[in-house]
Amino acid sequence: MTSTFDPAGGIVSTGVSIFADALVDQALDVSRVDWRPPMEGTESDLAVVATDPLRPEANAKALAAYLGVQGNLVGVAPAREVLGLEKGQFLHAGPPLLWENASGPMRGALLGAAAYEGLVDDPEDAEALFVSGDNVSLEPCHHRSAVGPMAGVVSPSMWMWIIEDPESGRRTYCSLNEGLGKVLRYGAYSPEVLERLRWMSDVLGPVLAKATADTGPVNVTSILGQMLQMGDEAHNRNRAGTLMLMRDLAPAMVQSGFDTGDLAQVFSFIGGNDHFFLNLAMPACKLALDAARDIEGSTMVVAMARNGTEFGIQTAGTGDEWFTGPAQIADGLYLGDYGPDDANPDIGDSAITETAGIGGFAMATAPAIVRFVGGTVPDALATTRRMNEITLGNNDRWSIPVLDFLGAPTGIDVTKVCRTAILPQINTGMAGAVAGTGQVGAGLVTPPAEIFPKALKALADRARARQ
Amino acid sequence: MTSTFDPAGGIVSTGVSIFADALVDQALDVSRVDWRPPMEGTESDLAVVATDPLRPEANAKALAAYLGVQGNLVGVAPAREVLGLEKGQFLHAGPPLLWENASGPMRGALLGAAAYEGLVDDPEDAEALFVSGDNVSLEPCHHRSAVGPMAGVVSPSMWMWIIEDPESGRRTYCSLNEGLGKVLRYGAYSPEVLERLRWMSDVLGPVLAKATADTGPVNVTSILGQMLQMGDEAHNRNRAGTLMLMRDLAPAMVQSGFDTGDLAQVFSFIGGNDHFFLNLAMPACKLALDAARDIEGSTMVVAMARNGTEFGIQTAGTGDEWFTGPAQIADGLYLGDYGPDDANPDIGDSAITETAGIGGFAMATAPAIVRFVGGTVPDALATTRRMNEITLGNNDRWSIPVLDFLGAPTGIDVTKVCRTAILPQINTGMAGAVAGTGQVGAGLVTPPAEIFPKALKALADRARARQ
Repeated sequence: MTSTFDPAGGIVSTGVSIFADALVDQALDVSRVDWRPPMEGTESDLAVVATDPLRPEANAKALAAYLGVQGNLVGVAPAREVLGLEKGQFLHAGPPLLWENASGPMRGALLGAAAYEGLVDDPEDAEALFVSGDNVSLEPCHHRSAVGPMAGVVSPSMWMWIIEDPESGRRTYCSLNEGLGKVLRYGAYSPEVLERLRWMSDVLGPVLAKATADTGPVNVTSILGQMLQMGDEAHNRNRAGTLMLMRDLAPAMVQSGFDTGDLAQVFSFIGGNDHFFLNLAMPACKLALDAARDIEGSTMVVAMARNGTEFGIQTAGTGDEWFTGPAQIADGLYLGDYGPDDANPDIGDSAITETAGIGGFAMATAPAIVRFVGGTVPDALATTRRMNEITLGNNDRWSIPVLDFLGAPTGIDVTKVCRTAILPQINTGMAGAVAGTGQVGAGLVTPPAEIFPKALKALADRARARQ
Repeated sequence: MTSTFDPAGGIVSTGVSIFADALVDQALDVSRVDWRPPMEGTESDLAVVATDPLRPEANAKALAAYLGVQGNLVGVAPAREVLGLEKGQFLHAGPPLLWENASGPMRGALLGAAAYEGLVDDPEDAEALFVSGDNVSLEPCHHRSAVGPMAGVVSPSMWMWIIEDPESGRRTYCSLNEGLGKVLRYGAYSPEVLERLRWMSDVLGPVLAKATADTGPVNVTSILGQMLQMGDEAHNRNRAGTLMLMRDLAPAMVQSGFDTGDLAQVFSFIGGNDHFFLNLAMPACKLALDAARDIEGSTMVVAMARNGTEFGIQTAGTGDEWFTGPAQIADGLYLGDYGPDDANPDIGDSAITETAGIGGFAMATAPAIVRFVGGTVPDALATTRRMNEITLGNNDRWSIPVLDFLGAPTGIDVTKVCRTAILPQINTGMAGAVAGTGQVGAGLVTPPAEIFPKALKALADRARARQ
């Protein structure tokens, strides 16, 4: 159940029981091979990076830094206060993006947010603002220590969860989850969407702020560990996490002094939204992964994020540089009459969960999710095992009971991805391609393969420059 | 995933995937054989029962009756009101019991309940009452449509969950869960135990009664189905169920008009007790199983219950007769410094969960439970598969994702138990053998083997009498 570093640069996994191996190797249709061809054109960069003398220790340091962080929920406050966002400034999911390249759901969410902020009355009138760029600006959430699911649009009036590392005091942020269906983050901006956002600012945010302050720090990392024993993989299943958060805040909520009708609505809203906890899982993952940033020589991925047009990754060894490629369409299950033609390419910062070893990486612990994202139970079990092939270690704090308490596969290694051509598996929601639609389904997706060789090349170039 | 009746009297299981079979047959150390010797001395009774012309249809009818019932939580009220219990009347877990045969934890619980009811000031003074039998009486919970975990002692002032079948209006009942450790149902009766019981009567019961009335029926059977997708097996893991109950009652609780300090205490109490939902799971199981009672020719078990001295079963085809044998000591994990010598034999009506196909029968869905009751993850997976060998069918409403959504193995068949010598697997808490101790651990246990041949003989005698 632990993994130790091989000084030669590889990983020796120990403690994975015969059962877990047998499950995948014999009972499931999965082939594990000692060698498979690397991604095309990566041979020379792989050779350089594999022999980079910094790499073994850098990766050990990056993994240890990530594993050492636990995130506490310490507050809830408007984005203008905690992120310094000013009127006209909007954050979005994924790598940097220009309006002219933005997809339908991203545009829809920005239009809605502009109306919600009072820049326009009718959301559709905001298009001219974004086309002109006058008095409005776009910036990735990741550049402000934040993450946002799907479109991930954050505007100054939105209330944010604050997650803190008690050791360093570092903080990360995420907006409050609106629920499923016609919601801003899926690109919807109808009056009901804006009305819900206003209720979230007027009631939900203040109630949670008071309850959180009165409760004191809530260990989100620990709740994530419990979720993995309760059928949540913390990306597309967050039901147990949502309920545990409610449990932890409930005593303070009832004593908060707020109107009991408002409190009842808050309880109903949280209880009716199984994804509510996702917006705490994501910043907790980012908080831990950010601890692994800026370690020269490390080939560990510290962020995977999509803006609906491009999929980008950042690595520990390459600073703030994004390596991007076209976002893919997920393969999954559709709501109502929607089908593949209605789906937008992959979008959202929520792949930070997979970057941290949960979500698609921990599907084995949430087999019921196949009824939501598609695939089969054996696929779900095999996916976790496969992700173990491209990661640096296992997170024993987040263990997967059915795989004999195997720790979540943690720390995606760019070199292992290039060497095996196994791509990270992401569980995701699907937004409608047309602005205003909302959610159309949920499914499974991978990053575009070419971004890993791009990152590998940058890592190799740095290693060459150091020689 | 469905099971159909073979007119010849056997069961044909269909839809169990190759994966589920492979998991057990190849990956796990479990042997499934077409034939193994039946329990000693059962050959002639087996021959009679197997050829009983009533049996196939009677079992089909019993299983269908059981599967047709869903239980709704419809109220919370004192036992004196809903069970007609009068001062000095006490219910207990398991088959009928005399004070002189009662074990330590059963005696401890009765002493505590007598003090709680004001029959004595000091619990230990109640011993004389029970020895004399003057103005006190003992009766099984099962005889009053109730069930009780561990000692299962119910006295008139205790508040009871009311579970109702909306089709027939039939109701079953169970007391409110006190938490773990030093609690009455584990035989503890110290002042803190009685003080908690008084708070439960003064605050918890009335709050839940009001919230339940205002919320309207809560479908407990459906929550059980969701729990099985969230790592609960609903006997020794009830965390997700507890949280979902809190979710469902929270809006009404905050609007109940009770003092907010009391409400905060209620939220903390429920949130701090992962076993709280057990006391709804149990009566929901009994409600469904009781629908299968009194079907001549059926060999299905409708109750398994232990009083701390004896383990008893009842079957659909033998009316209210109990078939009993000595309760066994569980094999499991101990709290603190406790060990096997401290444990009382098996006790409680909670084996009604296994009788209904969950608890030990659904361990595969709750692999994390092995850290609480002992054993290994492969054992947990294999147990569910093994229980499938002695049951009449599968409950598709309660499906087990990791076994490719196999329905919980449902309807223990006395003939199959005798024919295979596979005993039902029960997950259980362990009470201290000495009155006043409380909980000492949790573990795995089976019924005494001889009670199944006893039941089989009674079934065979009835079949012979009909010939």
